Amino acid sequence: AYQKHAHDFFMPEALREDLQKKAEATLQVMPNSQLPNLDTYHTLVALDTSHRKSATVFGYPSWVYKATSMKNGYMYCLRRLEGYRLTNERAIRSVKDWRRVNCGGVVSVVDAFTTRAFGDSSLIFVTNYHPLSKTLVEHHFTNTSRFGNRASQTVPEPVLWNYIVQIASAVKAVHSANLAVRCMDPSKVMVTDKGRIRLGACSVLDVVQFEAQRPLAELQQEDFIHFGKLILSIATNNLSVTTTPNLAPLVEQLARNYSSEFRDTVVWLLTPAQAPATKGVGELLSGIATHVVDAFDSSLHANDTLYSELAREVENGRLARLLMKLGTINERPEYEGDVNWSETSERYILKLFRDYVFHQVNAEGRPVLDMGHMVACLNKLDAGSQEKISLASRDEQSVFVVTYSEIKKQVNAAWSELQKPTRR
Amino acid sequence: AYQKHAHDFFMPEALREDLQKKAEATLQVMPNSQLPNLDTYHTLVALDTSHRKSATVFGYPSWVYKATSMKNGYMYCLRRLEGYRLTNERAIRSVKDWRRVNCGGVVSVVDAFTTRAFGDSSLIFVTNYHPLSKTLVEHHFTNTSRFGNRASQTVPEPVLWNYIVQIASAVKAVHSANLAVRCMDPSKVMVTDKGRIRLGACSVLDVVQFEAQRPLAELQQEDFIHFGKLILSIATNNLSVTTTPNLAPLVEQLARNYSSEFRDTVVWLLTPAQAPATKGVGELLSGIATHVVDAFDSSLHANDTLYSELAREVENGRLARLLMKLGTINERPEYEGDVNWSETSERYILKLFRDYVFHQVNAEGRPVLDMGHMVACLNKLDAGSQEKISLASRDEQSVFVVTYSEIKKQVNAAWSELQKPTRR
Ligand SMILES: Nc1ncnc2c1ncn2[C@@H]1O[C@H](COP(=O)(O)OP(=O)(O)OP(=O)(O)O)[C@@H](O)[C@H]1O
Ligand SMILES: Nc1ncnc2c1ncn2[C@@H]1O[C@H](COP(=O)(O)OP(=O)(O)OP(=O)(O)O)[C@@H](O)[C@H]1O
Ligand SMILES: [Mg+2]
Ligand SMILES: [Mg+2]
Repeated sequence: AYQKHAHDFFMPEALREDLQKKAEATLQVMPNSQLPNLDTYHTLVALDTSHRKSATVFGYPSWVYKATSMKNGYMYCLRRLEGYRLTNERAIRSVKDWRRVNCGGVVSVVDAFTTRAFGDSSLIFVTNYHPLSKTLVEHHFTNTSRFGNRASQTVPEPVLWNYIVQIASAVKAVHSANLAVRCMDPSKVMVTDKGRIRLGACSVLDVVQFEAQRPLAELQQEDFIHFGKLILSIATNNLSVTTTPNLAPLVEQLARNYSSEFRDTVVWLLTPAQAPATKGVGELLSGIATHVVDAFDSSLHANDTLYSELAREVENGRLARLLMKLGTINERPEYEGDVNWSETSERYILKLFRDYVFHQVNAEGRPVLDMGHMVACLNKLDAGSQEKISLASRDEQSVFVVTYSEIKKQVNAAWSELQKPTRR
Repeated sequence: AYQKHAHDFFMPEALREDLQKKAEATLQVMPNSQLPNLDTYHTLVALDTSHRKSATVFGYPSWVYKATSMKNGYMYCLRRLEGYRLTNERAIRSVKDWRRVNCGGVVSVVDAFTTRAFGDSSLIFVTNYHPLSKTLVEHHFTNTSRFGNRASQTVPEPVLWNYIVQIASAVKAVHSANLAVRCMDPSKVMVTDKGRIRLGACSVLDVVQFEAQRPLAELQQEDFIHFGKLILSIATNNLSVTTTPNLAPLVEQLARNYSSEFRDTVVWLLTPAQAPATKGVGELLSGIATHVVDAFDSSLHANDTLYSELAREVENGRLARLLMKLGTINERPEYEGDVNWSETSERYILKLFRDYVFHQVNAEGRPVLDMGHMVACLNKLDAGSQEKISLASRDEQSVFVVTYSEIKKQVNAAWSELQKPTRR
């Protein structure tokens, strides 16, 4: 196989373990759940770890669930706003525009609807589900984060540049779809994979604050300020940034741990343009271009690693299919005593091959349990190699010398035999 | 599982097929090869598709091989410069500096040495091997490219921006390692994966033109001109760009198919700075920042797709390992007639489970060959599910009702039994 690169900005160290945990989290259900089924979503599981009822972000308490779609069987994330009453149908229709936004830095918005299934009047937002994701608050502000960070640790500057690049990319996608992010609270930005963040509450305020009818241009300009506050709050380890009237002392504090380029970027984000001038994401991207290209290169490296891991696993997949074929052929009870499967039959070879692959013993008669040997044999079988092997009968009275290629023919013949509509 | 995104800039449509073809290309050997073995590399296979002997790019005819390293068993790419005589040891040592460059847009340089194994005096460059890669010439200028492109087709602007971003990223990595690319001939830039290009001849001219001792700053400034010529030649479908004295008419021609932003970028690359001013890659990146971020987002989408494909394949890998375990346990000849494996033994269950998974028959007694059933059974076994199944003995006289969890315990017990140093 070809080589892996050593970059790891976006690559979990224990990739397999990570995948396994996510698969488990995706499949996990709550046995005695009191949660209702909705019209098109069933098997709801609460994702909120705290039961704190807070209305600060949206003006309504909100709860998050994962649920399975009846339509396609996929898992989605549902965000429920408790006690919301829809007064204008157009409010909820604005969510449709978000389907056009397909960006790696935005949790994709799928749908929104109201429901009485929870015993109140609730508003539900359906988005993509990212198993085991954490909010930036959970990730950076709690001691017990699954990443083992301590709350008081300074977040390294390269991590923050990586966030800035991803959010800038998301803002570009959102603004060019003629929308605004509106909510960038640290509790609504998700860490979905190693180094990957996504804006997690898009479209919610569009519905909830629909009546205010604020002009898009104004909301887009405000996005830069939300962006600046988000970065400032993580960099200063201070969650009250959103409510602090005077940010100057916090900005000063940045000098302690961060470069002037970094501080200048935060200041640019926080400083409104002098009307009638406006700020644009293009200007931001030009200023941080070298960081964008660094993130790009990291991402390409992650791609290369994933690609070669995938190459290896695809090989395993082939072996699994081959093993299942062999499993169906050998030792079928209905063939017991069948003359065609007797020791003179060509298919008898497959039985001996099975012994050769799985039942090797060493000089002392001890089982050899070497998966490397098994994988090598199966790979050669799959490839139909010209290599010859000697297969001894169990009584050691006869030895057959065959190539893998011949055995492969036998497997395929036996497999098609089993598939025939009627037996001889 | 969670959803895939629809982006495909970096993702082959037939991912599995692509991986399979690359694996085959990697393993392919030439039966009656006349190629020599080198000190540390064996099993050389020529990668040049034409036998044209051309010295235009390096001043020496060059040939490309893949070969296996004796040291680690990995596959590498060797480029041989025919008839090169080393006069100064320091020339070849300059290659070491290239090992510091670890960039997704550069074919990694591993080593260089001279050899007489080909019957002449040859210079060998060792680089990473990228199976089935094509040069930009092969990809864009030949009718018979494996991508089915016609030579006369205009390359779409987004494809060229993608190239520009990747090469800019590579130039950044090279320049900041105090090196210069020097060779960006379209025949020396590789398309290694869908949408991915890499500079493929780094370090060669550093050795071959060592004596000229040209200043680094001058070479770096020249890189921008090489860069401009490369893009111009692909955009105008004209391979003589490198040798044409007057590029103005070709640049004019760009107006037909490309935006003014694109033309301005090419012109910027082709225009030398007014000394003493110099051009820097940072300036270039600021100018093309929105394209960089687009490439970044595509790459993140590719990551997401690869990640979910990998999740699926990892599952297959677990099943393959489980099947191999089962293979080692059932039907071992040395257990034939062993009372511990008799029909009263608990391990007898495993034999019946094997029948349940692989040897199902339908109402007419026909084999059921449903891999879905097998995969489902094996997944439940692996997870140790509490689900109960009924296992009937072959004579149908006894039925055992067991959970997957109990069977899992049996498998693990039997497997450890086999691993014990001595048998009872
Ligand atoms: N799209 C999603 N996929 C998977 N998990 C998600 C998704 N969106 C949110 N979550 C998870 O759900 C949990 C609850 O999210 P929520 O936004 O309610 O955060 P919170 O800390 O409870 O904030 P609040 O106090 O505003 O409710 C978090 O752990 C978050 O990572
Ligand atoms: N690192 C590599 N890994 C895999 N294949 C490579 C690598 N480098 C080059 N190749 C392949 O080897 C082949 C020959 O490369 P080469 O540079 O000789 O091109 P060429 O068209 O023959 O040019 P020239 O006329 O200069 O020899 C090309 O198909 C190229 O894609
Ligand atoms: Mg909550
Ligand atoms: Mg060649």
